[in-house]
Amino acid sequence: MTENAHKQVDSKGFTVWFTGLACSGKTTIADALVPLLRQKGFKVERLDGDVVRQSLTRDLGFSAEDRRKNIERVTFVAKLLTRNDVAVLATFISPEVSMRANSRKEIGNFVEVHVKASVEACAARDVKGMYKKAFEGLIKDFTGVHDSAPYEEPVDPELVLDTERHGVDECVRQVMAKLVELGYVDA
Amino acid sequence: MTENAHKQVDSKGFTVWFTGLACSGKTTIADALVPLLRQKGFKVERLDGDVVRQSLTRDLGFSAEDRRKNIERVTFVAKLLTRNDVAVLATFISPEVSMRANSRKEIGNFVEVHVKASVEACAARDVKGMYKKAFEGLIKDFTGVHDSAPYEEPVDPELVLDTERHGVDECVRQVMAKLVELGYVDA
Repeated sequence: MTENAHKQVDSKGFTVWFTGLACSGKTTIADALVPLLRQKGFKVERLDGDVVRQSLTRDLGFSAEDRRKNIERVTFVAKLLTRNDVAVLATFISPEVSMRANSRKEIGNFVEVHVKASVEACAARDVKGMYKKAFEGLIKDFTGVHDSAPYEEPVDPELVLDTERHGVDECVRQVMAKLVELGYVDA
Repeated sequence: MTENAHKQVDSKGFTVWFTGLACSGKTTIADALVPLLRQKGFKVERLDGDVVRQSLTRDLGFSAEDRRKNIERVTFVAKLLTRNDVAVLATFISPEVSMRANSRKEIGNFVEVHVKASVEACAARDVKGMYKKAFEGLIKDFTGVHDSAPYEEPVDPELVLDTERHGVDECVRQVMAKLVELGYVDA
């Protein structure tokens, strides 16, 4: 029996919920965490828009109501995975305080991470040109750009990652340190 | 370290997919399996209409199209749980061969169990009076009753449980024996 297998048995599930603007760095940081958590013996599942929109939320668009439904379904999945001892890394803009509060309530072992960068910084990183289109009005209701789609910053998140000041490695280090501090991961 | 914990590490996930008419016995049999599988060291998750319609599929009705979407979303959840070593017990009428074939393809470790009883036997057990309403035309498109909602029997299921001939205990025994035969559960 390996040391990893032993840790797996003792481990409990949790969900790290990365919230922040498009191109703030959520996906990059979460992806970088996957091998580190697997190394610690965790089963890891990544949940993001690209994954769930293929099946779970294929019928949903990007209106405020549809985004809420999207988060509601993802929350259900994260809840079931978490209570079955999986480490879930969820990356969703999830712009509303209330939807994140509901996810926290449902999931239980919930680590809210605000991936923070200014709209300008996010736009500068945006290789798909979404922000450009949003600025030009070609995309409507773009979170953080249009008044119709504000980003509500987390009130009391477990962690704020300043991705304008820190690179991926440092952000990943901060998440792992927080997971250790919270007792989800062994040091 | 307990024996159960040891088994947990070695165990792999699977989904037992119970299909059959309303009141055929799916839920009763699946519920009875939960403690037995937990005893074997499995993490167990039950998926059924009552559970998922509260959040995952709250927007869906009972039309053929909505039932297909329902099964599609449930399949996504079962797939993620199964690949994270959970024993999933899913109970859905799931009347179409094609939807079950898709679930099998997506989930992988898939054990299709046809819970079989005649419409008459199911109607006789129906304490909610759904069949009566369906016979009287007060409920439309009721699976197995109306021509608009046929139940397509499984072509090649892993197991057929005849719940007119056998009681719950015998059916549960047959499922456990099949899981052992398929290598999912230790004898």
